[in-house]
Amino acid sequence: MPVIQVNLLEGRSREAKRAFAAAVTKSACECLGVKPTQVRVIFHEVSKGDWAVAGTLYSDMDEKPGTSSSA
Amino acid sequence: MPVIQVNLLEGRSREAKRAFAAAVTKSACECLGVKPTQVRVIFHEVSKGDWAVAGTLYSDMDEKPGTSSSA
Amino acid sequence: MPVIQVNLLEGRSREAKRAFAAAVTKSACECLGVKPTQVRVIFHEVSKGDWAVAGTLYSDMDEKPGTSSSA
Amino acid sequence: MPVIQVNLLEGRSREAKRAFAAAVTKSACECLGVKPTQVRVIFHEVSKGDWAVAGTLYSDMDEKPGTSSSA
Amino acid sequence: MPVIQVNLLEGRSREAKRAFAAAVTKSACECLGVKPTQVRVIFHEVSKGDWAVAGTLYSDMDEKPGTSSSA
Amino acid sequence: MPVIQVNLLEGRSREAKRAFAAAVTKSACECLGVKPTQVRVIFHEVSKGDWAVAGTLYSDMDEKPGTSSSA
Repeated sequence: MPVIQVNLLEGRSREAKRAFAAAVTKSACECLGVKPTQVRVIFHEVSKGDWAVAGTLYSDMDEKPGTSSSA
Repeated sequence: MPVIQVNLLEGRSREAKRAFAAAVTKSACECLGVKPTQVRVIFHEVSKGDWAVAGTLYSDMDEKPGTSSSA
Repeated sequence: MPVIQVNLLEGRSREAKRAFAAAVTKSACECLGVKPTQVRVIFHEVSKGDWAVAGTLYSDMDEKPGTSSSA
Repeated sequence: MPVIQVNLLEGRSREAKRAFAAAVTKSACECLGVKPTQVRVIFHEVSKGDWAVAGTLYSDMDEKPGTSSSA
Repeated sequence: MPVIQVNLLEGRSREAKRAFAAAVTKSACECLGVKPTQVRVIFHEVSKGDWAVAGTLYSDMDEKPGTSSSA
Repeated sequence: MPVIQVNLLEGRSREAKRAFAAAVTKSACECLGVKPTQVRVIFHEVSKGDWAVAGTLYSDMDEKPGTSSSA
């Protein structure tokens, strides 16, 4: 039954998301006592211009090396 | 006042979403006792590569006919 | 496949939510071409102290009759 | 620690989002007692065909001037 | 940077959530290439009266054994 | 039109949320060009046992002073 929504910055490959969805589903079954068919994982890719940490958009951090390390 | 967010796979037509938004709003008014102007419906279209059921992305299911029926 | 999340103010009865979930699911099947078993509806009840419209919490509106009509 | 998700209609400029993210982060620090590095702001842009008020999609309102004023 | 929100039915123990959060974080680091400190996992517990599958609330399924198996 | 959802740890006072909702609404009007009545702010309070950073629940951090500073 769990519905797992993942907000992440754009740019991860299909393979990375495939592996993560499989791993999360496996962990849900082991830790939460559900069956694989009950687990849904939904990715919401967010562009760097749409995500801010400490008041600064990621797209602006790119121009200031080092500021993204704590994100 | 209800804010209704709908995560669905990409590919539904404008007409389909128009009809669903109208129907959901009507149901909200009838069942929850609100006025039409108080209801918001927001669709979040998700690509097949961003949604997994049972640990498998929909985009991978397309290559394995039959696996999507329980989604 | 649709996952439908409904944010609404606390206080609706079990019966109201039961009727709304059934109606929304029926509409999803008719409008979006999915099967009933594919539809999930999740309610998130929000207290009046946790929802603001026009910068004013609903809990504060109660003390100012008339301000909630446009919510 | 707050994670602030903003659903808004598409079309705001990078500069508008930059200013809003900075302002929200500042307000979070002042009102909620957190540090800037603890605040995340995520924008989810929604197209006019994916957002309905009063049962009508914004994309349909454009053809009916005046109806969007209460949105 | 990923923000992972988990909607699940109420009733999981603290230990179950602790183990799941740790496992998901580990998977995010391995699959998505992020650092542990960048990962946030937020659980939203939902009561059985607030979650419907196939138009039926979980709280109503309890009275009809067998219907919850496909949830 | 913006719908702003704020996930935050439980424990903020009504006054803190009142001030934040007012400030965010004001910023939305100034930065995004909307009217106050178009802005909705919804708080989702999360318990310390339901939020993890770096794979550790906040409720567990309380027992390990210093680990929460980067949250």
